[in-house]
Amino acid sequence: MTAGPLGKSRQDRPCATDFVIASRQCEIDDLSHLMRMGQLVAVISNLIHALQRERGASNVHLGSGGERFAAQLDDLRAASDELAQTFYGALNEVASRTIGVQSGARLFSRIAHAVHVLEGLAPLRARIRALDLAPDEAVRHYSAMVGSLLAVVFEAADAAMDPTISRLLVAMFNFMQGKELAGQERALGAAGFAQGEFDAAHAERLSDLIEGQERCFDIFAEFADADSQALWCAALGATDQAEVERLRRLACTGNLSALIRSESASAHISDHWFLLMTARIDAMKEVEDHLEDQLQALCVERLEQARLRLAEHESRIGALQQTDVAEPDALDKDAVEENGSFVVFCGPERYSSESLSPRLGRAIIEMVHDQSQRLQSMQDELDAAREALEERKVVERAKALLMKHRKLQEDDAHRLLRKMAMNQGKRLVDVARAVVSMADVLG
Amino acid sequence: MTAGPLGKSRQDRPCATDFVIASRQCEIDDLSHLMRMGQLVAVISNLIHALQRERGASNVHLGSGGERFAAQLDDLRAASDELAQTFYGALNEVASRTIGVQSGARLFSRIAHAVHVLEGLAPLRARIRALDLAPDEAVRHYSAMVGSLLAVVFEAADAAMDPTISRLLVAMFNFMQGKELAGQERALGAAGFAQGEFDAAHAERLSDLIEGQERCFDIFAEFADADSQALWCAALGATDQAEVERLRRLACTGNLSALIRSESASAHISDHWFLLMTARIDAMKEVEDHLEDQLQALCVERLEQARLRLAEHESRIGALQQTDVAEPDALDKDAVEENGSFVVFCGPERYSSESLSPRLGRAIIEMVHDQSQRLQSMQDELDAAREALEERKVVERAKALLMKHRKLQEDDAHRLLRKMAMNQGKRLVDVARAVVSMADVLG
Repeated sequence: MTAGPLGKSRQDRPCATDFVIASRQCEIDDLSHLMRMGQLVAVISNLIHALQRERGASNVHLGSGGERFAAQLDDLRAASDELAQTFYGALNEVASRTIGVQSGARLFSRIAHAVHVLEGLAPLRARIRALDLAPDEAVRHYSAMVGSLLAVVFEAADAAMDPTISRLLVAMFNFMQGKELAGQERALGAAGFAQGEFDAAHAERLSDLIEGQERCFDIFAEFADADSQALWCAALGATDQAEVERLRRLACTGNLSALIRSESASAHISDHWFLLMTARIDAMKEVEDHLEDQLQALCVERLEQARLRLAEHESRIGALQQTDVAEPDALDKDAVEENGSFVVFCGPERYSSESLSPRLGRAIIEMVHDQSQRLQSMQDELDAAREALEERKVVERAKALLMKHRKLQEDDAHRLLRKMAMNQGKRLVDVARAVVSMADVLG
Repeated sequence: MTAGPLGKSRQDRPCATDFVIASRQCEIDDLSHLMRMGQLVAVISNLIHALQRERGASNVHLGSGGERFAAQLDDLRAASDELAQTFYGALNEVASRTIGVQSGARLFSRIAHAVHVLEGLAPLRARIRALDLAPDEAVRHYSAMVGSLLAVVFEAADAAMDPTISRLLVAMFNFMQGKELAGQERALGAAGFAQGEFDAAHAERLSDLIEGQERCFDIFAEFADADSQALWCAALGATDQAEVERLRRLACTGNLSALIRSESASAHISDHWFLLMTARIDAMKEVEDHLEDQLQALCVERLEQARLRLAEHESRIGALQQTDVAEPDALDKDAVEENGSFVVFCGPERYSSESLSPRLGRAIIEMVHDQSQRLQSMQDELDAAREALEERKVVERAKALLMKHRKLQEDDAHRLLRKMAMNQGKRLVDVARAVVSMADVLG
């Protein structure tokens, strides 16, 4: 809020309309921030896409003992670096313009973590080039980078105060998460096919990744608009889903002999898988880009609406100040009944409240009332959209507790939660909630 | 956040520590805002106290047909006006310094409503002076003013990001709410005793007010520190609770004949009640003042801690930048295991990440990790404190829905919820939740 709004009262006593305007100005500030966050999310989405490709190609390289994708890796690394630079530039922009926003402390803490994790890219690449790393470990490191970037997106989604934008961000975050699981599937499969085998652990991991994607895309479908959903269906239709499912089945059952017999070498199958999955993931990226465009358009639209509303209110207040029809004062009984709370005439300071025009009073009552009703119904819608994010928080929290108290890896913690849910016939989030509420006992 | 933190990176690529510092700076900004809100709450508390007195005396005046408290009213009105001026001054201060804070839009909307409602004070007083208003109606108008001010306090409590401060604000808000119900009890009783009778509706209302106070003070006791609780017990001990309960019983049973026979006139009993309840409410105000002092002290302490932490980190980073022990790079496996995520060395830009000292790397890892862990555990504690506020929101929302769809007054809506809860053997909040989730059906 600028110093402006309250400068208008000509006396010590401020007027209600000044604060209605200040409230609207806060909404505009929130929306401007959200728009900048949307731009940051778009930049992050591009960087993640590049890192996902680099991860997949690195795994083909590692899985083939350095035989394949040596040249491609250079290109992919250069592409990642360029997008990382764009990301760093965007961060500087965000840092200089983010002034005391909603959950700024958490946002910056997430960014700190992401920046920190990304500094590991150079040593990671050196070890990949030296073939000094198992494919699994390479995947884990790249995935941690992507995860730290997704955590920044999550924080942006969590801070949105506009319900429509919040719904879109929930859809987007889940889509990005689903795409990341698809990326991990590509990398894991690429290494497995290149090595010519999937052991039981890898087959189980692959199943987990496939199932996780479905969950994410379900939430996306629940929160996305019809347009984005249609685009997603079209994208799926354009990829060879049957072939994807065939290769998945063979990998998950661990029996590659049928495949290896019919193809000349495992290297070719690995390439085939990589290209197939890359087409799928690239199609996802198009949906993601569409979601980002929508987010920007929505922010622009909301900002315009908010600015128009503010201007309209300011001019209405200005016009009212010209009208000078003094009428005898009275307690406005209708307004008391309508609003369920006590309201009498209010006006600019040059009227005493004893000599306000009823018309003027009513106009201001409406303004005050509209704004608080609008914020309330926004809050209600927002609560609904937030639930999906809350559920993720609870699951993450439960996983962290299990990792700490049972010394589990993240994957295993997740698997344990899923088993508990299946055994108890409950939803994952309900089991997670029970774990979190047990935290005191565990601790 | 000032433009400072990121100015330090000498290249395009920002360093994680810059964002750790930005995150801490955001916490400091949040705390500064919270401290200003605490000051506003103290000012509101004083204004509410004066309005409560004015309401009680107005009811004695109205109940006695203008015979009593004519002179006192002038003094009490002057006292309220002075505190209202202080409130307006504080609002101007808040408005000029509140820059895009957490839920600023809602805060300002609440303030707009409060400022608006307070403009009705002058016509209300005129009608009281003219005896042109039933005592009940006067109470309803004054209570709406106090309610609009409490809504501002609620918003302040809801925006607190520090769990200890949030707990204190929850305790405080509920204490203020309880005190307000005590104030309404004083006013209702003052009119009833002055008129010499309590009909069934007034007796029921009185019971509701007494029960409501108990609920509020229970929540206060749950969230307040031992000191404040002890002060509250001492305050209760210093007032004549037995006499309060005797008068309450007589009023609630509607049988005043015993009382009126033993005293010379109903006017004296009304005075007696007024003084007794005023002593009780003044004792509450002392507890409230103590809570406010505590809030200020806590904010000052937290701010000092946060500033010290920030300074300490800045000097640690400075010191680390002097240490120039280049060692061969390696992926930090311990850190990967400990944190469950990928972490490698990070440092100021003049080191490439390939040639960082492990000591430097580890120090920065710790900083990033500490900050995110601290924010996470703060969030967990905060969620617990927030639940009490969430429950109030749900109950308010359910009441609003019932008022709208069943055309009920607020009191009746509350009573309906309570009856539903009793009949179903459920907690009030659970019934409220069911009502809210039925909103779509009702609408």
